[in-house]
Parts: sequence; structure tokens; C-alpha cells
Amino acid sequence: MIQAAVVGAAGYIGGELLRLLINHPGVELTAATSRTLRGRPVDSVHPNLRGRTRLTFSAEEQLDHCDVLFLATPHRETMRRMPEFLAAAGVVIDLSGDFRLHDADVYEHYYGTPHEARDLLPTFTPGIPELHRERLRVADRISVPGCMANAGILALTPLADGGLIRGDITVDARTGSSGSGAKAGSENLHAERSGALRVFAPTRHRHEAEISLATQHTVRMTATGVEAVRGVQLLCRVALGEGADARAIRARYRAAYADEPFVRIVAAKRGMHRFPDPKILSGSNFCDVGFALDEGASTVTVIAALDNLVKGGAGNAVQCMNVRFGEPEDRGLEFTGLHPN
Amino acid sequence: MIQAAVVGAAGYIGGELLRLLINHPGVELTAATSRTLRGRPVDSVHPNLRGRTRLTFSAEEQLDHCDVLFLATPHRETMRRMPEFLAAAGVVIDLSGDFRLHDADVYEHYYGTPHEARDLLPTFTPGIPELHRERLRVADRISVPGCMANAGILALTPLADGGLIRGDITVDARTGSSGSGAKAGSENLHAERSGALRVFAPTRHRHEAEISLATQHTVRMTATGVEAVRGVQLLCRVALGEGADARAIRARYRAAYADEPFVRIVAAKRGMHRFPDPKILSGSNFCDVGFALDEGASTVTVIAALDNLVKGGAGNAVQCMNVRFGEPEDRGLEFTGLHPN
Amino acid sequence: MIQAAVVGAAGYIGGELLRLLINHPGVELTAATSRTLRGRPVDSVHPNLRGRTRLTFSAEEQLDHCDVLFLATPHRETMRRMPEFLAAAGVVIDLSGDFRLHDADVYEHYYGTPHEARDLLPTFTPGIPELHRERLRVADRISVPGCMANAGILALTPLADGGLIRGDITVDARTGSSGSGAKAGSENLHAERSGALRVFAPTRHRHEAEISLATQHTVRMTATGVEAVRGVQLLCRVALGEGADARAIRARYRAAYADEPFVRIVAAKRGMHRFPDPKILSGSNFCDVGFALDEGASTVTVIAALDNLVKGGAGNAVQCMNVRFGEPEDRGLEFTGLHPN
Amino acid sequence: MIQAAVVGAAGYIGGELLRLLINHPGVELTAATSRTLRGRPVDSVHPNLRGRTRLTFSAEEQLDHCDVLFLATPHRETMRRMPEFLAAAGVVIDLSGDFRLHDADVYEHYYGTPHEARDLLPTFTPGIPELHRERLRVADRISVPGCMANAGILALTPLADGGLIRGDITVDARTGSSGSGAKAGSENLHAERSGALRVFAPTRHRHEAEISLATQHTVRMTATGVEAVRGVQLLCRVALGEGADARAIRARYRAAYADEPFVRIVAAKRGMHRFPDPKILSGSNFCDVGFALDEGASTVTVIAALDNLVKGGAGNAVQCMNVRFGEPEDRGLEFTGLHPN
Repeated sequence: MIQAAVVGAAGYIGGELLRLLINHPGVELTAATSRTLRGRPVDSVHPNLRGRTRLTFSAEEQLDHCDVLFLATPHRETMRRMPEFLAAAGVVIDLSGDFRLHDADVYEHYYGTPHEARDLLPTFTPGIPELHRERLRVADRISVPGCMANAGILALTPLADGGLIRGDITVDARTGSSGSGAKAGSENLHAERSGALRVFAPTRHRHEAEISLATQHTVRMTATGVEAVRGVQLLCRVALGEGADARAIRARYRAAYADEPFVRIVAAKRGMHRFPDPKILSGSNFCDVGFALDEGASTVTVIAALDNLVKGGAGNAVQCMNVRFGEPEDRGLEFTGLHPN
Repeated sequence: MIQAAVVGAAGYIGGELLRLLINHPGVELTAATSRTLRGRPVDSVHPNLRGRTRLTFSAEEQLDHCDVLFLATPHRETMRRMPEFLAAAGVVIDLSGDFRLHDADVYEHYYGTPHEARDLLPTFTPGIPELHRERLRVADRISVPGCMANAGILALTPLADGGLIRGDITVDARTGSSGSGAKAGSENLHAERSGALRVFAPTRHRHEAEISLATQHTVRMTATGVEAVRGVQLLCRVALGEGADARAIRARYRAAYADEPFVRIVAAKRGMHRFPDPKILSGSNFCDVGFALDEGASTVTVIAALDNLVKGGAGNAVQCMNVRFGEPEDRGLEFTGLHPN
Repeated sequence: MIQAAVVGAAGYIGGELLRLLINHPGVELTAATSRTLRGRPVDSVHPNLRGRTRLTFSAEEQLDHCDVLFLATPHRETMRRMPEFLAAAGVVIDLSGDFRLHDADVYEHYYGTPHEARDLLPTFTPGIPELHRERLRVADRISVPGCMANAGILALTPLADGGLIRGDITVDARTGSSGSGAKAGSENLHAERSGALRVFAPTRHRHEAEISLATQHTVRMTATGVEAVRGVQLLCRVALGEGADARAIRARYRAAYADEPFVRIVAAKRGMHRFPDPKILSGSNFCDVGFALDEGASTVTVIAALDNLVKGGAGNAVQCMNVRFGEPEDRGLEFTGLHPN
Repeated sequence: MIQAAVVGAAGYIGGELLRLLINHPGVELTAATSRTLRGRPVDSVHPNLRGRTRLTFSAEEQLDHCDVLFLATPHRETMRRMPEFLAAAGVVIDLSGDFRLHDADVYEHYYGTPHEARDLLPTFTPGIPELHRERLRVADRISVPGCMANAGILALTPLADGGLIRGDITVDARTGSSGSGAKAGSENLHAERSGALRVFAPTRHRHEAEISLATQHTVRMTATGVEAVRGVQLLCRVALGEGADARAIRARYRAAYADEPFVRIVAAKRGMHRFPDPKILSGSNFCDVGFALDEGASTVTVIAALDNLVKGGAGNAVQCMNVRFGEPEDRGLEFTGLHPN
């Protein structure tokens, strides 16, 4: 059994890690820490876990050494405390933003604060099994991408690696409210957020930088909060290079994802489920990817969707753990999602 | 022109008062106070008023004397400051809970704090034109009922006054999230509140006491938060007394409401709009009331719906103002509501 | 492996059966029939199953004999074709309404049509493991209760069997839109149904009859469509008999459900998750049951919630199959539900 | 009084026309036609009109001559019957798609059918007061733009006319479900449409052609159905030409819209209401327009929002009528929209 612990388990990503780890047959969840809820049952804030666990939140000082430590901690705090975390476990899987951008200057530009652990940056492997599976098999330090970043990277790297992308990339990202976390603020008050189409980041969203680094193209991303609790959907508009037609593009995606357990190519000719939609992905670890060419085949719109708390966070982190510890990659991640939902 | 001011104008009831008063042709809005937002434009927190007003929030000390003062202040604070408010205007219309219950002991039982202005209690007239129109024409102190209370009182008083109700009344109340006000709390975080069916008051909701006093029957009310921003719907289950059949009940409602501008009897035999539904009432001042008898005609289910911020608050208060100042009763309240919505 | 087939697999209950059976390690899904979609892949209408199955819909004539046949067919048609279904499988689990009411006269009263297989009625065992587990271990004909009925029966039978209920029972039921099935009609058009609080059955809902037969009390149920796709919640108001206090009631529920895998007692003193809410149950097989007494302890409000397609239908049917075939009762039903969702 | 009639009054656009015309002090609504609902009260399908009108649907043959005829009829049928409509009224305001595209070849390309009234095409004036007010004062044939088209045209023409746009325009359009009309289809079933992010038109949406003709730029528009009943929001990404900086862009919008009654410039530096959001526009005739430049000021994202049934249809048509008949332009269109909503 893999001994696993979660730091920052009271939030939404933390709670999702608990849900997946508690139900994972190969894992023993040894601790779930919270600064504010020490001693309280975890199901008091994660009511879906009622009857499934008697675990209570522990203080971070009490952390015993474990095989794998999942970090659902805020950025800045994470890089400052990373040495302590690294000492506490053989493998650290970080879900914060601090070790996603290998370039410290880019980090400072997007996060508005200098990176405080530059020397550790290169020691982290991106938590993207579809791109870095072999490295992840032996990685002790894993940084899981942002929810929108993961969708964008899975949507675009097959085209970018194939040299099919010409010039800049435009990304229109839509996200549900759980991406903002469990902290109450007037902007996430139900009466304000319900039914909103809120352009909260017209430029410079942090996940834009991750997609840009992965694709080596300039990315112009706009982020809009839509009426949903879970779910991320990206529309990526790309100008196509020479010899990029529908066949070539489909071939690239087939080559990239035909054998992937959690990436599905969704591009139907008709019907109401033609393209990726997060509506049917809640709770599942799938990232659905589809595409549509304009008439002149000079541009393609790539569409990607996932559950921001699963394939966009906790589920992807558990998938990385499975790869790292030699478990079947889909173990504990079999849930298919619901329809209708 | 009626000179009107609003105390506590930054909240949702306050904002709705601003919307209605700014668009009321017979009213000059002289002030909108806020402790925290003094000096800021009112449309910075009420964006629907953009382009309709240049008004900024003022401090409460700056209140000049006006014809009518609307109080959208918290309970307890309201009763404590009432003497100051009474000195500031010829007519005071209170939307807080402090002067709704004429019996100070009932107030203490339901609000968990002693009433601090018992002598003023009998000087307030209930802000229910359908029941107290003549008194309101000359009332200088008006207390507007709670949103669910107004729905329940309008639903049940025709039967209660007709002696058709036998024994206790069961009320199942459903409400949108705006009823909780504009203060952020984790229970109203979008991710928690969205799609919820939250039984937040299985017993002892404060509005229960208002319905009980108005009907002179014991009321057992349960309140559930449902997925909506605006809207209240009540299902009232009543055991019927002698000679209460469908015809008698319909006659009671016709007699009570046939000439009322804002109460519609909605009880169709078929179709998808058979009974009152707040879905089509957002922004309107209607309270729709309908009913259905069980087969034995021994019980009747009375259904009422309204917009908690309009007929359940600000709109009802403006209707009271119209009555008091001799304006056409529906002036500034003509909006019909939207379908679909 | 249990050889299982689903008749009427294109609808929502049928699709949920496919989801659960495909992911059930002890089951081989041999056929999914549809009149209209013969030959089409099942994931063309159930997109959550993409990548999980290559099954196509088959015609009903092609049904080979199997161990267990699940019927997601309309009422009336089901009772007419039952002989044919019984011949096709060792065990038949019916999810239609035709064999839920053992009294043919009650059936005719609520369904408005005479029962056409009266002789078969007594041969069916109610698909409620919590009440009939031992009978289900050997039952070859199982009739799964209606979604609201199952919630009401699980909420009320511990009190009814304990003689704690005095007189009639009032039930306020709320349901999501998936309960109406996958057939398009103007009343379920998104623009009409979204945000609705539609009292579609003020009296005589068919599920009322099931609760009444199970509790042996008159039940007055009102059914309201609320803004949700999945989810049922019931508020049951009961007058209490002698010696029924909070301790006695809690003891009854503990005795009834402490060892049940899929019924959780949810009645917290505080917090935002005090009572059962279907919001966190989507996809899970739990039925949460809670209660609250009024001050005088003369009445109790029992609250129950479940996912209408799972514990209210397909999941409950699979649980019955597990009992009947000696599988672990929670096999294939481990999903905990999501929070937030 | 302006004598007005509505053809095709049973649909959503038709119902919205009825709501606005019934409440318009300068209009007498003489007829509302419906093929299928002849003789039935209009409030039987438009329940928000209860108590406001006793009008019943009439057959189209019964149409008396009137001052202005609003056409809420399907495309194709509209162009075929246009001669009959033109004979029935002094002024015809068409809300169908048939006379929006002045180029019959573009029409055929986007609508997949040849235009059958080419000679009439040039006789129609676009129903866009902000661009064609003077022509509309004397126009007898007015074609109101599509809901997304109107948002896109109001968002982009100030930049296009100023020569600030370089190259193609990318438009990401989001729309609520009421845009699909009142006809039931499985794709608009609540269970399927609720919470969806459905890319239903990745390319070639018909409204794209209108924006392209108005701006004289190639437009690549993607249309996504989002969780909302009403509301359209467009994100338009534009590469900027020489000398286009924030000041120049703001100046263009100020010059274009400072005096417009129904276009508001919404581009705040902070807060949760920074950019246009249809959430607060339901029922109002506003089109809010805002913009954000990327860091290099080489591209700008223009954001526009409106209520598809009001400024995107019926309200805009009534505004055109006001212009044509010399009424105050905002008459009958004063509703501000609700917050929260």
C-alpha cells in the first residue's frame, strides 16, 4: 500500500484528493492536514465522504513521513515551505502554481512576485503523463499543471509538436466557480456568480504562461467564469501551417492519444454531443479533445474540456502517482462521468 | 415630487429600492446611505443602474429631512436607531424584522433577543395594502412584512378570515439565495449554494411567526434554499372546516383579490403554468396565489409565489408609499416579469 | 460472470443501467435494446460511455436468454409484455411502475388504466433491500420502487413500523428534470424548465400510493419540479404518537439503518450540510435520511434525498441484483458522489 | 396611438414583442397571430402577461391593416409571404433572417437555400438605430439584425469605421437557450441543455455573415450554448492597426455611443462587474460594450452583452418603431434590468 498524505485538505482540491485516495485500493491515506480545522472530521466539510472515512484533520506539524505527499497549498507559501515538504515524503506532488513555470522570470511576470526557490525549479517534472510518462516513472518531485493549462496543453501540443501551428494562439477559456476555491468572497457569492458570464481575466491569466511554454507559441488567453461549479472548456483558435488539413490534424491527435486512457478525441459530424463539453465530465478524469476546421482550412478551432478538480487537478495528480508507483494508470480513476447531469 | 431616501442602500433590498425609486416618476431620490461605501457611485455595486443615476452613497449623518425614509437596515440596529429615523422623515417605511411582530414576547422567542422599543411596536402599521389599505393611507410608520411572510399571509388570510381553516397550518417554503443578503459567507459560496436543496430552517423560521399572527393559527413552516437567486414559493397545507369546497374557496379568493392590482389567482386545470411559480415573477410586484384540493376535499394546498426582493420587500414598500402619498398604487411597479426567464 | 441485458436502454434509466453494469466487475452486459436506435452505438446517446464500450443497441427480438433482464420500459407496455420478458431471463428486475402496487385497484386508481396482469402482481418482490433483503436473495421477479417512493419509504418505514406515526402523512417532494425521461416535450424545454418551481402534481402523484402501501398511512404528497437534472428530496411531515421523542426517533433510525451500506442518517446540529441534500448525491447510490422535531415534539419533519436515476432507479436495481446473485452488495456502486458539485 | 400587430406571436420573440407593445403607452396592439393557437388567450403561453391583457391569438387571414406589422416568422416562409405582409401595414419590421443580408449569394451560402425575393432585399433598412437612425426615421421596411449579430456589430463598427482593425476578426459567441426558440427538441431538453457548454456552431453561424458585412472584415465566429435562458455575450479578438492605443479606442467608443440611450461602455479597472455580462441585462434593452488591450497593445478584446430577446430582437424592433414613428426612443423600453438576478 502506498502511504499518502494531503497538505491543505480542507479546500476543494484537497477534498477531491481525499475522495480519490480514500477510494483508491492501492493507497492508505495517512493524514489530511488543515490549519483551521484541526481535529474536526474531514466529512464535516466534505459531506460526500460521510460513511466512507472517520479521518479527522491533523495539524501540519504532526505529519509523519509518507511515500507520497500531495500539496494543495497556496502559491508563495508552497515554495517557501518546499524544503520541509521534501523532507516529509519520498515523492512530492505539488498542485500549487509555484513549480509549474520553469522560467523564474515568467513566474514573476505572471504571479507578480519573485520566485523564492529558483534552484528547485528545474528539479520538478511536469505532472502530464501524456507528455512526460517516462520521466514521471522515476520522478520524486512532480508539479501538476493548472486546470486550464492542462486542457490547453493537451489540446495544442499535438499540433505544436507537429509544426502545424503558424503564429500566435488565441484561447477562450471558460471555467466553473470551484476553480476559485472554497474561500468566501463577494465575487463568489451565489447571487453574484449564479448565471454570470464574467470575463475575470481578459489578459494575463497565469495558466496562459503554461500553455505558451509547452507549445512554444505566444498564447492570448481570455478567461470567463460561466454558470457551473465544476468544469473547464477551452476554445483554441490556431492558424494552420503548410499541409495541415483535416486528415493530417486527425492523424496527429490519433497518434498522440489513441492509446491514452484519459484523453478522448470527440469530433462528431452531427448530434448534440459533437464536441467536448464538461457537462458530462464531472467527477471523471477524462480530458476530451476535439477540433473543427474553417472552410478554407486556414484555421482550426481546437476544443478541450475537463473537470477542473479531477483531470485539472486531483485526478491528474493521482494518475501521476499511479505512474510513479507502478500502479495501473487508471486505478482509482475509473468513474466515467454522468449523463444526463 | 415625493422626496425619498434609503438607509442601507448597498444591500440587495437597498439596491432594489434604488431601482424602483429612480424609475418612479413621482419620486425624487434624495439620498442613499451606506456605512462602508460612502462617496462611491451607487452603480459600482448595483451595475444595473449604470447610466440611470450619478448618485453616490452618502453617510447616514448627512441625512436631510425627507418625506419618506426607507429602512433596509439589520434587525436590532433598526429598533435601536428608530427614534433617530423617525425624526428624519415624515413617513418611515421599515423593511427590517424589528416591527413586524406586534407581540414583543413572540419577537424575543423568534429573534432570540428582547425587543428594545416595545412602546413603538403598536405605532407601526403592517405594510400589506391588501389587508390594511385604509390604515396605510394615513400611516406614518409602516413595517413591511418578510418575503416569505407576505406570500404566506396573502395565501392564507382569505381562508382564515372566512373560517375555512381547521387546526394547524403546514408551510413548505422555498427561497432563492438573494434572501440571505449581500454578505459573503461560506454557506452562500456559489460552489456550495448552486443546485442545493438546503433545509436551512426545519422549524422556527422567523417568518413563521408573522403568518401565525396574521392567520391566528399555529403555523409549522420549513424553509429550504433552492437553486434560484430571486424567488419565494410557499406550499401551504390546510385542513378544511365545514362547507369548504372548491367553489367556496375560489369565491373567497375572488372576493379578496379580484380588484387587487398585484395579486393574481393562478389555478389552471392543465398546462405547464398551472400554479404560481416565481420563475416568471422576477422583477415584478405580483404575488400569484393558487390552490388545489385533495380528492376528499378535506385538505387544500395553497401555493403562493413572489419575487422576494420586490413583492417580498422593496416593491411592496413602494406600493405602500404609493398608497400613503395618494399615488396610483401601481406607479413605478408596472413591470410584468419575463417569460421565458 | 452474471449475464445481464437491458430492455429500453436508450432512455435515462436505461443509460444509467448501462453505466453501472459496464463498470460492474461481476457482470457481462450482453445486450442493450432500443426500438428506435437499433444498430447505433450506445455511446451516441450516452456520451459518458465513450471509450468504455463498443456496444450497439440491438432489437428486442434478438434478445438471447440471460441471467438477469432489466426492464426500463414504459408502464402498460411492461405488464403486457411481461410473459415474454419472464421467458427471456432467469431473473427479471422491472423498473417500470406496473408491478410496484400489489393492489390492482390502487393501480387502476393511480394509473388510470386497469391492470392487465393481475395474476402476476403477487409474484413480484419489492426491490427494497433495506426492507426485503432475505426475500430478494431468492426472488426471480423484482419490482424496483419509484424514485420518490423509495425516498419516502426509506424515510418513513422506521417510524411507521415502530408505531410512532399518528394519522396522515404530508409529503412535499421535489425532483429534477431527468425524472421526466429523455422524451422532448415543451414542458421540459430548457427555457421553460430552467429555474422553475413547478408544482406539477399537487395531488395523486403515483409514487404517493407506494409510500401509503408501505407505511399503511394515508399520504398526501405534492410534487414540485425544481432546478436540477438529477436529485429527489422529500420533506415528510408526521404527527407523532405517544412516547415519540428525539431519542426514540433516533433509535429507530439507528436500528433500521446503522448497518445499511447505502442509507446514511444525516441530522447535524449546525453547519450548511445539516440535512440530506441531493446536490452531493449525484451518481451515488446513497439515500440520506434526516429528521427534525418541532419544539413541542408533537410533529417531526423527516427529510430524505437521493439521486433519482441511481438509488431511485438503476443503482437500486443493481443493488437488488447483487443481493440476488450473492455479490457484495455495494459492488459496482462504490462511487461516493462529489463535493462541490 | 400606433396600431401594431405581431405575426407569429406564440414564440419567444413574439411573446417578448407582446410584452413590450402591451406596456408601451403609445401603442395599441391590434392583433397577435398564431397558426396553432388561434382563439386561445395569449397569456396561456405567455404567463407573465396574466392580468395585463385579454387578447387571444387570431388567425393570420384575419389581419386588418395596421400602422406597423412585426414579423416573428421563420426564415424562408418570411420571404415567400413578404408581399402579403407589405400589403397589410404601412411599416413592416421583420425579425426573421431573410432580409438581413443584402447580398443574396451570401444569404444562399449561409442559409443553404436561394433567396426568393432578391428584388426586395435592397428595399430593407437594417434595424440598427445606432448606425442608421436617420434612414430609419423614414423607413417602411426594416430588418432587425440577429441577436449575436447586433452585439457584434455594436462592438466592432466603431473600430472598423475608424480603420483600427487589421485583418480578420475572431468572435467567440455564447448564448442562452431561448435563442433556439420555443420548439421542443431533444437538444433543448432541460436534462441535456442544463449546464451545457455546447459548441453548436464551430464555424459558419449565420450571424457571422451579418457582422462581416457590417465591418467589411472576415469574421471567424464560434457559437457556444451556455447555461442561461436569456443572454448573449461576444468576445471579439481584433488585431490593431497603426496608432490604435487605449486612448484612441476609448475615444472611438465615446464618440460612437456617448449619446446613445441603449449602449453603455463598460470597462472598469476593478471589481466583479468590470466587463459586459448578460446576467444583469435580462429584460432590458441595453447592449453593454467593453474592451481590454493586451500588454503589447497589438490586439484588443472587445466584449459585448445583451438580452437576445430584447436588444437582440423584440426590444431593438420596438426601438426602431419609436424612431420611425417619432416616439421618444426609449419609450416602453425603460426597464433597467435586475441585480442580483
